[in-house]
Amino acid sequence: MPDALPSWNDGPNKQAIVNFVANVAREGSASYVPPAERIATFDNDGTLWNEYPQYVQLAFMLDQVKAAAPKHPEWAGNPVFKALVTKDEKALAALGEQPLMALLVQANSGMTVDEYDKTIRQWIATARHPTLKRLYTDLEFQPQIELLSYLRANGFKTFIVSGGTLEFMRPWSAAVYGVPPENVVGSSQAVRLETRDGKVNLVREPTFEFNDDGPGKPMGIYMHIGQRPILAFGNSDGDQQMLEYTADGIGQRLVLLVHHDDAEREFAYDRVSRVGKLDKALDEATEKKWLLVSMKRDWKTIFPEAGKQ
Amino acid sequence: MPDALPSWNDGPNKQAIVNFVANVAREGSASYVPPAERIATFDNDGTLWNEYPQYVQLAFMLDQVKAAAPKHPEWAGNPVFKALVTKDEKALAALGEQPLMALLVQANSGMTVDEYDKTIRQWIATARHPTLKRLYTDLEFQPQIELLSYLRANGFKTFIVSGGTLEFMRPWSAAVYGVPPENVVGSSQAVRLETRDGKVNLVREPTFEFNDDGPGKPMGIYMHIGQRPILAFGNSDGDQQMLEYTADGIGQRLVLLVHHDDAEREFAYDRVSRVGKLDKALDEATEKKWLLVSMKRDWKTIFPEAGKQ
Repeated sequence: MPDALPSWNDGPNKQAIVNFVANVAREGSASYVPPAERIATFDNDGTLWNEYPQYVQLAFMLDQVKAAAPKHPEWAGNPVFKALVTKDEKALAALGEQPLMALLVQANSGMTVDEYDKTIRQWIATARHPTLKRLYTDLEFQPQIELLSYLRANGFKTFIVSGGTLEFMRPWSAAVYGVPPENVVGSSQAVRLETRDGKVNLVREPTFEFNDDGPGKPMGIYMHIGQRPILAFGNSDGDQQMLEYTADGIGQRLVLLVHHDDAEREFAYDRVSRVGKLDKALDEATEKKWLLVSMKRDWKTIFPEAGKQ
Repeated sequence: MPDALPSWNDGPNKQAIVNFVANVAREGSASYVPPAERIATFDNDGTLWNEYPQYVQLAFMLDQVKAAAPKHPEWAGNPVFKALVTKDEKALAALGEQPLMALLVQANSGMTVDEYDKTIRQWIATARHPTLKRLYTDLEFQPQIELLSYLRANGFKTFIVSGGTLEFMRPWSAAVYGVPPENVVGSSQAVRLETRDGKVNLVREPTFEFNDDGPGKPMGIYMHIGQRPILAFGNSDGDQQMLEYTADGIGQRLVLLVHHDDAEREFAYDRVSRVGKLDKALDEATEKKWLLVSMKRDWKTIFPEAGKQ
C-alpha cells in the first residue's frame, strides 16, 4: 500500500491518525462507525492554509474597500478609512475593531451574491501573500490536503468550519481542498431577496448575520451538518469549543491542533499572537491529550508545489 | 432499461423529467451540467409526504405541549393551552398564531439537541395520521421516493428545503428519503452551548431563529448549499420564491409543483386551504409553464406499501 500521507513524518501523531481511521472503518469491530456518521470538521485559517500575518479574507475585504472608495466620497471623512489608506496601524488599533468591521461590511455589500462570487474568484486568482510572495491558493498545507483526501477515501465526509465567511471560501474550496460549497460552514453576512432585471437574486446586506467562531462553531455544525463530528482539527482558541464538542461525543474521537512552530518554513506563533492565538486551547490540549501537531516535526512538506492548483 | 419511475404514469410530465435529466447528464452537450452543480431541492410537507389536514411537525409539537404540561402548572391559566386541551378550534383561531407559537417553542425547548432528537425518533415510530391511520413514515409519496433515487443515480445531490425545522426532519430523513441530515435545510429554533454533566452540549432555546419559508427558502439554500438549484419541487405558495430562484438561473432548469387534486387517494386542496395553500404559485406556474404534477393523473401509486420503512 502506498503511503496516503507522504507529507507527514512518521511518528506518534501520524500513527494515531492512521490508527483512528482504521478503527472506525473496521466493520464488525466495537469502534466501527458507519460512513454516514464519519463527520470530520476542519477549521480553515491556520489549519488548512496560511493565516499569518493577516487573515486572507481580511486582505480581500480591504482590497474591496479600496475598490469601492470612488463610490463613497463620504469615506474621506471616515477616520478608519483614512487610517487604512495611510496604513496607520497605530490609529487603526486605537479606533478599535467595530468601526473597521462596519466599513468592511459596507464595502462588501450591495452586490448580488453571484457578483460577489465572481469578485472573489478574480481576486484569488492573482492576489499574493505579502512576504511569501505566493498565490494564496498555493499556501494551503500539503499534509492537510493529503489528510482530507485520505479521510474521504475512507468514507469520511469532510467539512470546513471556519470563522471566515462561507461566501469567501466557497468559490475555491472545491478546487483547493476537494470540499464542495455545501460542505463549507462559516460566518455569514446577511442577504436579502431582490428582483433585479426581472430575475430573482440575493443581494448582500451590510450586516453580519452569524459568527462561526468559538461557541458559534458547534452551533454552526449543528445547524449545518446536524451530527457531532468524530474528528475535528483546529489551530487556535477560536476552535476550542468545536474540539470540546467533538471530544465530548460518545465513542472514539480524534481531536487535533496545528501548532505553528516553524519560523523557518512558515511562521511561529501561539499564545500572544494577534492572529490565530493559541493559548487556552493549548492548555486544554495538554490536559486532555488532544494531538498537538507540530509543523516543524510532523510535517515533511508545508506547501504544495507552486501553481499546482 | 427498467423504468426508474414506475409509480409515475407515462405522459408529458414524466417525459419532461426524464428528458431534463438526460440533457443535463449528457457529456459534451450544450445542456450538460457537471455533477457538482446538479443541485435538486425539494420542499417536504405536501411535496415529499402528506401534510393534510395538519402538518406532521405541528402534531408532534402539540404532543410535546401535553407531555410538558405537568412541569408547567402556570399553563393552567394560559388561554391557548386551555383551548388546545379542550380542542376548542374557534378559541384557538381567535387567539391568533403568535401565542400558540410561543407555547410550542416553550414546550419544545430546554432539552439538549440529543434528547430532542431521541424524542422525535420515539414519537415518529408510533404516531399515526388521524384519518389515514398509517404511520407518518408510511405517508411519503412513492413517486417522489423514486424521483429522489433516480436523480441521485444520475449524479444529482438531493436536498430538502422545508418550512419545517431541520431538527424535526433529520432523525428520519435518511431512512425515509435517502437524504442525510447535512442535506436538510429548514427553519430552526435557536440553540445555546452549555456544559451539562461535564460535557459540552447544545441546548434548545425557546425562540425561533430562522424561517425557511417563502423568501427564506432561497436564503436557506444560499447559506446552506451555496449554489442555485437546477431542479426544484414544491407544492405551495411557500415554495414560490424557491421555484423562482431556481427558474431564474442560467441554463436548463426544471421547476415542478405537486397539485393535491386526488380526494380519493389523498386529499384535494389548493387556493383556499389553511394548510399548503397553493394560489399565487399556481398562477405563476401556469404563466411560466412550470410543471404542474397532478397526483390524480401523474401518479400511479401515492403511498408505499405500509411498513416498508
